[in-house]
Amino acid sequence: MRILGIDPGLAIMGFGIVDVIGNKYKPVTYGVIRTKSRTPMPNRLECLYNELTDIIEKWEPDEVAFEELFFNKNVKTAIMVAQARGVEILASQKYGLKTYEYTPLQVKQGLIGYGRAEKRQVQEMVKILLHLKEIPKPDDAADALAVAITHGNGLRFKEQFRMK
Amino acid sequence: MRILGIDPGLAIMGFGIVDVIGNKYKPVTYGVIRTKSRTPMPNRLECLYNELTDIIEKWEPDEVAFEELFFNKNVKTAIMVAQARGVEILASQKYGLKTYEYTPLQVKQGLIGYGRAEKRQVQEMVKILLHLKEIPKPDDAADALAVAITHGNGLRFKEQFRMK
Repeated sequence: MRILGIDPGLAIMGFGIVDVIGNKYKPVTYGVIRTKSRTPMPNRLECLYNELTDIIEKWEPDEVAFEELFFNKNVKTAIMVAQARGVEILASQKYGLKTYEYTPLQVKQGLIGYGRAEKRQVQEMVKILLHLKEIPKPDDAADALAVAITHGNGLRFKEQFRMK
Repeated sequence: MRILGIDPGLAIMGFGIVDVIGNKYKPVTYGVIRTKSRTPMPNRLECLYNELTDIIEKWEPDEVAFEELFFNKNVKTAIMVAQARGVEILASQKYGLKTYEYTPLQVKQGLIGYGRAEKRQVQEMVKILLHLKEIPKPDDAADALAVAITHGNGLRFKEQFRMK
């Protein structure tokens, strides 16, 4: 089972692909897609869509796990990032991939066992579980790997995390 | 010049196409795309993208004018609708169409001349300018025609409304 994890974003979208073999994880690839704030929105959305499509075509994941957006104040920023998340979900859907979503809390619980873990602890756990020498950089790539692992951990329960 | 106006949405997206001939407007077509709340988000986004793509292929607009989203409270709803708006912008961009955006205030100013006009007044003006017998239904289609007309009115100034 090959899982693509996505930390959605407009300026920077993290992706991380892991293979789940039994109860072990093998890193396949990870990184980020960046778009510049001076580029017009339609072009940024197209860039995200095209690059994510390339990743899906190249690495052929079986399922996709998205981190949920969480905003409590700046609605304008939330709208911009959500527009990007929309095209990122569309890219997955266009390839017929089953799509799941997890809150930041679920990711922390999934990797560390409790929801108030620090970001750094989650990243350390990603490093350990994937047998990496360093914590993946940038943070967005590490976060994407974390959500992919969370999905792998919860494969038995996954229907409840299917994107509604 | 053929303009596609879009009132973005997830459950219901309004569209309206008008031809601008000199200082007159001719209605071409208008309507809405609906998606059901019980359909999973990835499928709803794909439906919006595919149907909007069909409209663009069939009617071949030259430019697209979007109404801006305005939310002041429910961030969760804002995120869901913005995801839809993202794929609607992407569909326009994929066809190389220049994309513009107008706030609800700009639409009211554009059609009625002042920003505190009532929704009904805007709809009446759409009816008059397009020589329709009735106000277009539903509201989302009328709003989409209004933003298309606003763009037509402002063609001289349009660069300032290019989507950033």
